[in-house]
Amino acid sequence: MKQMDTKTLANYINGEWMEAEHTAPVINPATGEEIAKVPLSSEQHVEKAVQAAKKAQKEWALVPAPQRAEVLYRTGTLLREQKERLARLLTMENGKVLEEARGEVQEAIDMAFYMAGEGRRLFGQTTPSELKDKFAMSVRVPVGVIGIITPWNFPIAIASWKSFPAIVAGNAVVWKPATETPMMAYELTKILEEAGLPKGVMNLVFGSGSTVGDAMVHHPNIQVISFTGSNEIGRNIAAECGRQLKKVSLEMGGKNAVIVMDDADLELAADGIIWSAYGTSGQRCTACSRVIVHEKVKAELEARLLAKIKHLTVGNGLNEEVKVGPIINKRGIEKIKRYIEIGVEEGARLLTGGYELIEGDLKKGNYFAPTLFTDVKGTMRIAQEEIFGPVVSLIPVKSFQEAIEVNNCVEFGLSSSIFTQDVKKVFRAQRDLDTGIVYVNAGTTGAEIHLPFGGTKGTGNGHRDSGIQALDVFTEWRAVYVDYSGKLQRAQIDVE
Amino acid sequence: MKQMDTKTLANYINGEWMEAEHTAPVINPATGEEIAKVPLSSEQHVEKAVQAAKKAQKEWALVPAPQRAEVLYRTGTLLREQKERLARLLTMENGKVLEEARGEVQEAIDMAFYMAGEGRRLFGQTTPSELKDKFAMSVRVPVGVIGIITPWNFPIAIASWKSFPAIVAGNAVVWKPATETPMMAYELTKILEEAGLPKGVMNLVFGSGSTVGDAMVHHPNIQVISFTGSNEIGRNIAAECGRQLKKVSLEMGGKNAVIVMDDADLELAADGIIWSAYGTSGQRCTACSRVIVHEKVKAELEARLLAKIKHLTVGNGLNEEVKVGPIINKRGIEKIKRYIEIGVEEGARLLTGGYELIEGDLKKGNYFAPTLFTDVKGTMRIAQEEIFGPVVSLIPVKSFQEAIEVNNCVEFGLSSSIFTQDVKKVFRAQRDLDTGIVYVNAGTTGAEIHLPFGGTKGTGNGHRDSGIQALDVFTEWRAVYVDYSGKLQRAQIDVE
Amino acid sequence: MKQMDTKTLANYINGEWMEAEHTAPVINPATGEEIAKVPLSSEQHVEKAVQAAKKAQKEWALVPAPQRAEVLYRTGTLLREQKERLARLLTMENGKVLEEARGEVQEAIDMAFYMAGEGRRLFGQTTPSELKDKFAMSVRVPVGVIGIITPWNFPIAIASWKSFPAIVAGNAVVWKPATETPMMAYELTKILEEAGLPKGVMNLVFGSGSTVGDAMVHHPNIQVISFTGSNEIGRNIAAECGRQLKKVSLEMGGKNAVIVMDDADLELAADGIIWSAYGTSGQRCTACSRVIVHEKVKAELEARLLAKIKHLTVGNGLNEEVKVGPIINKRGIEKIKRYIEIGVEEGARLLTGGYELIEGDLKKGNYFAPTLFTDVKGTMRIAQEEIFGPVVSLIPVKSFQEAIEVNNCVEFGLSSSIFTQDVKKVFRAQRDLDTGIVYVNAGTTGAEIHLPFGGTKGTGNGHRDSGIQALDVFTEWRAVYVDYSGKLQRAQIDVE
Amino acid sequence: MKQMDTKTLANYINGEWMEAEHTAPVINPATGEEIAKVPLSSEQHVEKAVQAAKKAQKEWALVPAPQRAEVLYRTGTLLREQKERLARLLTMENGKVLEEARGEVQEAIDMAFYMAGEGRRLFGQTTPSELKDKFAMSVRVPVGVIGIITPWNFPIAIASWKSFPAIVAGNAVVWKPATETPMMAYELTKILEEAGLPKGVMNLVFGSGSTVGDAMVHHPNIQVISFTGSNEIGRNIAAECGRQLKKVSLEMGGKNAVIVMDDADLELAADGIIWSAYGTSGQRCTACSRVIVHEKVKAELEARLLAKIKHLTVGNGLNEEVKVGPIINKRGIEKIKRYIEIGVEEGARLLTGGYELIEGDLKKGNYFAPTLFTDVKGTMRIAQEEIFGPVVSLIPVKSFQEAIEVNNCVEFGLSSSIFTQDVKKVFRAQRDLDTGIVYVNAGTTGAEIHLPFGGTKGTGNGHRDSGIQALDVFTEWRAVYVDYSGKLQRAQIDVE
Repeated sequence: MKQMDTKTLANYINGEWMEAEHTAPVINPATGEEIAKVPLSSEQHVEKAVQAAKKAQKEWALVPAPQRAEVLYRTGTLLREQKERLARLLTMENGKVLEEARGEVQEAIDMAFYMAGEGRRLFGQTTPSELKDKFAMSVRVPVGVIGIITPWNFPIAIASWKSFPAIVAGNAVVWKPATETPMMAYELTKILEEAGLPKGVMNLVFGSGSTVGDAMVHHPNIQVISFTGSNEIGRNIAAECGRQLKKVSLEMGGKNAVIVMDDADLELAADGIIWSAYGTSGQRCTACSRVIVHEKVKAELEARLLAKIKHLTVGNGLNEEVKVGPIINKRGIEKIKRYIEIGVEEGARLLTGGYELIEGDLKKGNYFAPTLFTDVKGTMRIAQEEIFGPVVSLIPVKSFQEAIEVNNCVEFGLSSSIFTQDVKKVFRAQRDLDTGIVYVNAGTTGAEIHLPFGGTKGTGNGHRDSGIQALDVFTEWRAVYVDYSGKLQRAQIDVE
Repeated sequence: MKQMDTKTLANYINGEWMEAEHTAPVINPATGEEIAKVPLSSEQHVEKAVQAAKKAQKEWALVPAPQRAEVLYRTGTLLREQKERLARLLTMENGKVLEEARGEVQEAIDMAFYMAGEGRRLFGQTTPSELKDKFAMSVRVPVGVIGIITPWNFPIAIASWKSFPAIVAGNAVVWKPATETPMMAYELTKILEEAGLPKGVMNLVFGSGSTVGDAMVHHPNIQVISFTGSNEIGRNIAAECGRQLKKVSLEMGGKNAVIVMDDADLELAADGIIWSAYGTSGQRCTACSRVIVHEKVKAELEARLLAKIKHLTVGNGLNEEVKVGPIINKRGIEKIKRYIEIGVEEGARLLTGGYELIEGDLKKGNYFAPTLFTDVKGTMRIAQEEIFGPVVSLIPVKSFQEAIEVNNCVEFGLSSSIFTQDVKKVFRAQRDLDTGIVYVNAGTTGAEIHLPFGGTKGTGNGHRDSGIQALDVFTEWRAVYVDYSGKLQRAQIDVE
Repeated sequence: MKQMDTKTLANYINGEWMEAEHTAPVINPATGEEIAKVPLSSEQHVEKAVQAAKKAQKEWALVPAPQRAEVLYRTGTLLREQKERLARLLTMENGKVLEEARGEVQEAIDMAFYMAGEGRRLFGQTTPSELKDKFAMSVRVPVGVIGIITPWNFPIAIASWKSFPAIVAGNAVVWKPATETPMMAYELTKILEEAGLPKGVMNLVFGSGSTVGDAMVHHPNIQVISFTGSNEIGRNIAAECGRQLKKVSLEMGGKNAVIVMDDADLELAADGIIWSAYGTSGQRCTACSRVIVHEKVKAELEARLLAKIKHLTVGNGLNEEVKVGPIINKRGIEKIKRYIEIGVEEGARLLTGGYELIEGDLKKGNYFAPTLFTDVKGTMRIAQEEIFGPVVSLIPVKSFQEAIEVNNCVEFGLSSSIFTQDVKKVFRAQRDLDTGIVYVNAGTTGAEIHLPFGGTKGTGNGHRDSGIQALDVFTEWRAVYVDYSGKLQRAQIDVE
Repeated sequence: MKQMDTKTLANYINGEWMEAEHTAPVINPATGEEIAKVPLSSEQHVEKAVQAAKKAQKEWALVPAPQRAEVLYRTGTLLREQKERLARLLTMENGKVLEEARGEVQEAIDMAFYMAGEGRRLFGQTTPSELKDKFAMSVRVPVGVIGIITPWNFPIAIASWKSFPAIVAGNAVVWKPATETPMMAYELTKILEEAGLPKGVMNLVFGSGSTVGDAMVHHPNIQVISFTGSNEIGRNIAAECGRQLKKVSLEMGGKNAVIVMDDADLELAADGIIWSAYGTSGQRCTACSRVIVHEKVKAELEARLLAKIKHLTVGNGLNEEVKVGPIINKRGIEKIKRYIEIGVEEGARLLTGGYELIEGDLKKGNYFAPTLFTDVKGTMRIAQEEIFGPVVSLIPVKSFQEAIEVNNCVEFGLSSSIFTQDVKKVFRAQRDLDTGIVYVNAGTTGAEIHLPFGGTKGTGNGHRDSGIQALDVFTEWRAVYVDYSGKLQRAQIDVE
């Protein structure tokens, strides 16, 4: 990947690639090396981007949706052709292991084709009027300019969840990706350009949340903010958007639990936990950070987890043997360390891990040992707050009912999982677990792109990414009534 | 209606009717008479109501939805049986003429049956997983406790739009109706009780926005606020809800236009304008307050409107001959008067009306003469701001394209209408008019309950009342995946 | 029920009740008493009915669907008010026990409200055109005159499944009920009349299949035949309808199995089998007539079934203690007897029952002892052919896979059921059991009205009763394209 | 296209290309040259194909639908890459002009991507049960082996409408294309093979309807017949399928009218008529063969049509200037000639055309002059029967109402069109024209692939090709109920 070394990335505004005055280095979290420079844009860049988007959107909305969709089909094809290259770049900027990086690119590919399929759907409804000689229907119409703010942990997948439905529905986009992972944003935008997206429909503005993000949230010509990130920032965005009567879609934190019942296939449960807890080093919003285990099988589950953790190779994700990559940056490491201390102070028992890895080459990057606490109580801070690292808290319970209650006693509601053989428990769980996603006999990660993704309670504000539900925040419903009676007819009144 | 004189209304909390310490008089706007006393509740009432709702909701969510729906079917039946009585009460507290009051009660009846029909629908989706031996689906689940804040202008219809879908979906409700029109809230709650709604599922708390409304918006155990009212208050609610990551649905102001093209059936257009502009004395969010008229037919349209206005009897809505009832209160009158002055200052030409009516018995109530300005420019304040009274601004335009632009140049986006014979203009209009509702050859009012109701831009935040879309803010999507392969399968990765 | 004794029923054609020249006695299968006389109509009656329907349908289609639905809401309300009376009449003509008769009437009530809900739905789709300035949508339109032919075993429920969706969608109906159970048809038609259905929309013609049914199937002005009954007759109807290019919906036989796995809750399984096998004396198309049991639990299941069968009181269904009522007529008894002989000859082991009950008062009616064969092979005739009586064949199997295969090896595909605790088996079963309905941990009966009802393979021809899918055969899709570009635009060609 | 000369085509059965003993020549209708040899297969080929399909289908159904869809995405991509080559081949075997041939290939491309999009949709429904602790849903399941019989006039488009939804839904296919146009079938099958469709999922058997078609219709292991072709054959197929309780979807003839009202844009109407009447030489099921014209504009419309007809170059469709290609074969020519005679005898006035074209090179092919009758009565045979050639009958009418009646007075119900400026007439027309497709201000052809395609009355039997409605005949609904209460619960009975 020589050629990418310290490449200076550029904003993409109104179909032109424009470098910014200021930049920040992009660091490979696995090696500490600078791999690119990312623009630190100003409010002026946002202003230009919004004006370009506003103008382009009017034309784009008039392009028939099936033709808009052709751009996404081409995007999907280009992404597929470049999957391996993109995956490697993704690993370099984000740290996740190659296998996962490939999976993430695949997610963007799948979403491109899926949302392209909406070009010939975008279904509204025809429905009978209550009055004679009157016609009624609803249609989905674009909203206008969409501000998209995406995090570093799924730099291309989340971008695809948000931008593809926005685009196919006839909106224009101003996109601020995380400064940690700008290369995926750069590459995806390049591909959209190559796929023939008209200028101004997608505008990419790199920079900080406090400058670029803030300018977007405040801009009166951005009608929707679609944000994935921390609860704290999401809260501020939602407050400001509320003040402006701007639509806002939020996907934020999780404190996702795997429940292991006493009748579970423990080997399968352990595999599911390992994958969903330590994959991406726990830096997924759906990562498993709690295991709620029936006391009868607690000891055996612990043993199996410890055995599996021992075999988790930590290192540079470009190395195919590596199963756990680095933490995104030193701040991340520090946060995790603090929570280890908190956990210990709270009386949780540390079974393994709990420390930064600094041996050999690892010290150049940001690595943390896969960590397992046990004898955790559901109310402890390590069982309540999002750590965003490879840290799992085992919480023993005495019953199915208690497991459900512990699962539900956090402020988040993104994902949950249950391992059991019992069909009755399965159906109670899918009814009673209060998260937006429920897995049965699988870990807490692994959503498919055609189902709604998102969470309840503090995780979001009711909107969903992915699935056809993703269209909801990017379109408005328009009800259309045509009275062809030639006379004044009043609903509810002139009905026999 | 002797027996209702100065009846003291009560809150309904956890299935009990409880009077409050403080009350305010409810005044019939047509006569100035006190017709009831409405409780002015405190934060403690809200607290009790929320706790009751929280508790009741857990049980209610477990009642099968088809059985929850039975309560709404009974509600619809009871409303129908009492339609005439309710309509008269509604006229007394709100002022709208009897015919419209009957229409409004009918709307609640229709909504009861419609939402009851969701008991056996509430459709989610089954859809194939991308992995073998894996099952995927989405289900709608209730959100929890819904805070409903409703205005005085449709005291029972809007309440039905919000509470019926909330209830059938398995939520509990805390409802603050406008203090001007508490009797409809009282009656509807009585009927829900009689229909067998379990205690705590609907809780009615009368009082001011600053005390009761505020406490609801801030209460951590209310998960959704569904609000219809002014933009200013909606803005504050949305900001606060944003801060708390609370879901919020807003329906606010409109500045709705009827477009009259040069090929229009002018008699029909005039009828449509009269009905949608002066019905309910213009106090509808969808009321026509602008007429965008092609210059070729401007003179004739003015003449027809003036002729029709002359025949509009203004007075007490209980009198069947009356076509235009009172304004809700003196503050309303004052606001309208101010806008008359503003219009005149801006150079609009007053064709008729423009003054309060105070002759004879009218002086006891709050009446304003149906008012028509002409030669208005689209940018004038009277063509931009919501007046909420029987005041219409005629704006002449030279072309279809200009008409669309003038329609779209306001901050609101609720309703619009076009009168034309030309099918091409009809289909362009339904595409280009940027409101949430578009009427063709009908005025700006008269939505049917089974289509989505709500507006774009400053009118709302993307949610819709009525229609099946109303379910969106009262439910969360839950994606459920069941892996029955017995092994770890990873989406996007273990495909093929 | 004195007043019903030997009541002479009449046809209902074009809103008039008309007696026929010839009649046949209606016999209470529990007592052998004549309880009514049913008209044996001629082709002329059918002709009149079709002409009335054809004429009425044109007007009915123009009544707004929400207003058509009001008739069904009233029908549902009237059915509910008369539920107990109707249930008793149903027991008298059909024999099913009172509890089941009430359930059946409830089904018609539920269907009335459910299909009434379609009045404000009947959703078609709006969807973007691939060309600029072109609009596209689909709407559901009525087909015309529907011929409905219903069986005696669910005389009011099946009638409601077919007629209510047909009516709400804007069709007119000619209905030939089974001559064995005309009273439910008479009562339902009376109620539709009372509910305000315009004359000619529902036309009731009693009589034989060979005369009335045949005339309907051949009539060129009947556009759809919706038939529930035997495979032999269904086959002939479908052939004739095919020849005429008439739409036809068939629901026919079943040979439904309950699968009991070795991990099943055997008490629950036994309850489920007893209810679905011996309820309605096995005269349900979804009745369980096969039990596919894992050999490990075969003995215990047999023991539990025998114990429960012992407590099944057989007799007149009006007696609340009775659990199993009579067989519809002597022909039914004879058919069952033949199959008992066949089973014995094939080597099946008769565990209990196998004979007609003729002690005391039972001899006046048509009663057959609840019968259980065991050691049945899946290929035996008693395990392949529909007996339509209280006869169950236990088929032992060695594995889940074998159970699925045995279930699927019959020519029918209506209903199946599995009892197991194992979530993996549950999800495999719902995927692999090749019937139109699959139950888990419940018997083979008990469909709910809002889900599609019907079977695969020899049970039907792809259509479904109940659920919104019921609308499919009673409506045609109309695709509507409006080109408002003012120029010739060719799809697929003038794109891009 | 040298290499295609007299190429001998092969069947494709179980993934192998197999030549047949007997063949027939494939003649280019534009030149009379033999361009290929098509197998004339026997019942044994059908038998092998069905057995292969039956076996393959079991595996294919277990491939996750999103992966099945990948085959269609690749198919779409390959079709696009080969669009020009395929279009030229299509013109050679079918005769339609190149521009239309490209459009037809585009239709198959569009359908590939559209139906691929169903891989992640194929939506069924989750819906609440009426009983506690019970879960209910519906899923779409494949039917099994589908027999597809396609005509020569849209050899690749219609094949794509039928095979792509069948395949994505998990069925296997046995396909008999028309012997006149086997090359498109050959090419499409090649592409499906190249796209990775597993062997046995698509089986191509060339041959006659009387041998191959008949064997398919009678084969007990084919569960569905999807047929497009003549009414006579469709009728026989439907009768036989009925006898066997086989599902059958029919798309047959049309007698499609363009209505031209007195306010129509006559130039546009004439363009629409020319395109939909003489395109493909009128050999489209949706071709306009009637023009119902308001008497006020009859003369002018005739003049415009005559002027345009004069400029229609007839000839070999490979020549880009040619607008009207040949008739498929001499039988077609003879049939058209007969109808010209009939028309003249009936008293219709021949304005232009009416004869075979045999000058110069044209005599080698089968050409017929674009023909226009006027003063036709709606009841004449030329206005009632399908001619399938470039013959149009002008029928003057006095009113909108009469136009609707004339449109509806034929036995077919495929497509209709109205030219008018008047929005009222537009909406009445879309309600009252009794065809499955209605166009406004466009001719009778030009359906888009994502809307339901098909007709009412004698045109079909209620099923639809294309659109998501196409899935209906290729899937069965399965209702699944899971009772997790642990006790016997009876729907309709144990409620409340």
